[in-house]
Amino acid sequence: MRAAKRRTSREVRTGNRFAVLRAMYALGTPTRQELAGATGLSFATIATMVTELLAVGVVTEASREDSGGGRPRSRLKVAAGRGLLVGVDATETYVHVDVFDLAMTRLVHHDHAVGEGTSDPDRMVGEIAEGVRSALAAAPDGDVLGVGVSLPGQVEPDSGVSLFAPGWGWKDVAAQALLEERLDLPVHVDNPLKATTVAELWFGHGRRVAHLVTVNLGTGIGAGIALDGQLVRGATNNAGEWGHTTLVMDGRPCRCGRDGCLEAYIGVPGLMAQFGERHPGHRYLEGGSQTHFLAAVREGLEADEPEAHELVELFGEQLGVGLANLINMVNPNLVVLTSWAARDLGRWLLPVAEARMRREAINGSAAVVDIVTSAVPTNPVSTGMAAFVLEGFLERVGLPSPTSAPLRRLAEA
Amino acid sequence: MRAAKRRTSREVRTGNRFAVLRAMYALGTPTRQELAGATGLSFATIATMVTELLAVGVVTEASREDSGGGRPRSRLKVAAGRGLLVGVDATETYVHVDVFDLAMTRLVHHDHAVGEGTSDPDRMVGEIAEGVRSALAAAPDGDVLGVGVSLPGQVEPDSGVSLFAPGWGWKDVAAQALLEERLDLPVHVDNPLKATTVAELWFGHGRRVAHLVTVNLGTGIGAGIALDGQLVRGATNNAGEWGHTTLVMDGRPCRCGRDGCLEAYIGVPGLMAQFGERHPGHRYLEGGSQTHFLAAVREGLEADEPEAHELVELFGEQLGVGLANLINMVNPNLVVLTSWAARDLGRWLLPVAEARMRREAINGSAAVVDIVTSAVPTNPVSTGMAAFVLEGFLERVGLPSPTSAPLRRLAEA
Repeated sequence: MRAAKRRTSREVRTGNRFAVLRAMYALGTPTRQELAGATGLSFATIATMVTELLAVGVVTEASREDSGGGRPRSRLKVAAGRGLLVGVDATETYVHVDVFDLAMTRLVHHDHAVGEGTSDPDRMVGEIAEGVRSALAAAPDGDVLGVGVSLPGQVEPDSGVSLFAPGWGWKDVAAQALLEERLDLPVHVDNPLKATTVAELWFGHGRRVAHLVTVNLGTGIGAGIALDGQLVRGATNNAGEWGHTTLVMDGRPCRCGRDGCLEAYIGVPGLMAQFGERHPGHRYLEGGSQTHFLAAVREGLEADEPEAHELVELFGEQLGVGLANLINMVNPNLVVLTSWAARDLGRWLLPVAEARMRREAINGSAAVVDIVTSAVPTNPVSTGMAAFVLEGFLERVGLPSPTSAPLRRLAEA
Repeated sequence: MRAAKRRTSREVRTGNRFAVLRAMYALGTPTRQELAGATGLSFATIATMVTELLAVGVVTEASREDSGGGRPRSRLKVAAGRGLLVGVDATETYVHVDVFDLAMTRLVHHDHAVGEGTSDPDRMVGEIAEGVRSALAAAPDGDVLGVGVSLPGQVEPDSGVSLFAPGWGWKDVAAQALLEERLDLPVHVDNPLKATTVAELWFGHGRRVAHLVTVNLGTGIGAGIALDGQLVRGATNNAGEWGHTTLVMDGRPCRCGRDGCLEAYIGVPGLMAQFGERHPGHRYLEGGSQTHFLAAVREGLEADEPEAHELVELFGEQLGVGLANLINMVNPNLVVLTSWAARDLGRWLLPVAEARMRREAINGSAAVVDIVTSAVPTNPVSTGMAAFVLEGFLERVGLPSPTSAPLRRLAEA
């Protein structure tokens, strides 16, 4: 068992800096007074933090206005040109790279296809590095503050190690070190659901809601939890392994080695297996491709084919029970769906899933929860990874802060 | 959907006061310097908070020692005699009342049996009030700072309303108001699992561990979650409804109305039903009493009766899967068991449950979690309710603070 994580006094004292930055992104060009109002911090605290952020060039003065005879009041903004943030969503089939300026305007979007071949660390790290270099080649000149790379599976951001990535056969791979060697840039690694949740907190529904859960439906099934505006990591960054909670004890075998996990049912391979048992050799399953399967089901729904409706019904009921479990455990205000399976089938799937969830979740929790799609305008994984890079940069220049400190009262700003 | 909860600037600024008080309970007679070390707060912040706590008489000077020529350094302690805190664990069959001094020394323990009869609000409130009056009659004179009453089911502490207590047939009962009318004392109501978790944070394993989950096994099944040293309530105080997550989709009917909930299997009535299906009319089930059943199973285990072992095996496997789900969602350092079913059968039950949990939970989370019994020396429910009363008292005297602010770095103190 690990003891409580060590925190320095300075970390505790500066714990609200990120609330200020998040408020700045949300408000655009706020005054110090408006930042105090939005964060709930005192004017004196805000003034100190703004001075620090001005000193490292992360914030700049947007304008100065006369406040009616008194001291002129300046409006502040994030210093867009201070540097570039690179966010990477690395998956088994593609490497998606976004380059942002510091105002989080996306300057470059680059998709790097990962061809067939081994997925040993050397090759995959090479593919990721190539994607990043191509993206940066297309970006305007600027100080690259760091590269945030989302890796599938269990990732330990502090040590930079990929503990376990089953799809790639990785175990204890020093991914951060390998990437830094190739790129000669500071690299931060994390898990896609943590990145998605931070993106939602900073740039999406987290601006107005305290407790939210992001849900990914795809090959894998997972969740990211934010409570009181803060990302929940748990003891070892594994909180939110919703896909490996039980739908049926001793049920269908899951690729994780357990039986009966939610993912074994509603992960796309699980859906294909369930469908195949009912309709062996059906054309939706041709070639065994997950993308083809979902596209075929979608076409089937549009053409009103009964087996497509049957599948969505099954998927919706199972998803609804899973969502109710999540809601019963966490009691969030929002469940945010951020995935391709949800996007492709959502119109048919969500009404079934939501109805089942509302029957299954306890009343007091069902009454206050909404299910929505992501409000992050860019790829939430790469966007969240870029936010982590910004945190890392502030730490390197002497302004450490805990990951995604709460954004208080912004809802009332 | 509710918006993020409103917080005043003052609440945010004073958010660390409880960390100071918790450190004081843990350290006994610390200096201001030691409090700063234990909480990670600056000496200046500590000095301000201690001044406030001295002013309202909650803290007092324990001793003053010469610090070698410099300014004398005083040791502080909680002012035991400042007043009495009453904690009440109200259940369907008994009302358990503890009276504490402010140093949380238990002065009186009183068990009030609730006889047969209706469980309408008037009668139950009367029983609780009678229990409290009897306990206070036995206590030394003192200023009663408040009464904390744990009520079963869904409770909304802010409004003081019991939203739903299925065992009593309560729905939207203004419990706090009814109790205050009878007792003429400030009353705080909450749910037993929230109280248990706060007790563990303040006086138990929470002193050294950041992320813990308390688990109750009894008629009902539930969990209380603490992350980063803070109680997790969720949007409407319903986080931790672990008993109503799924063990088997569409499985055994649960008293909550859903099918397949964990509680429908391993709540004591569920265990009795499962046992009865395998051994109809068995003497363990005589009279249908849950207490009798558990005692008979325990005797059966001691006498090595195969059907007792069979039951514990079934219970352990189902509990193990449930624990793995909890651990996969929350990724805690500790699971703390605090219940009669665990106490009576623990010696036989826990090895089975833990082995199954370790097979089922994902590796990175299973590797860091321990299962232990509570380290709270008194009844955790009434102890936690007394801690809530102390919070409420500080709020009334102008020192508000969020519920159980994190206790940082105490592990290294």
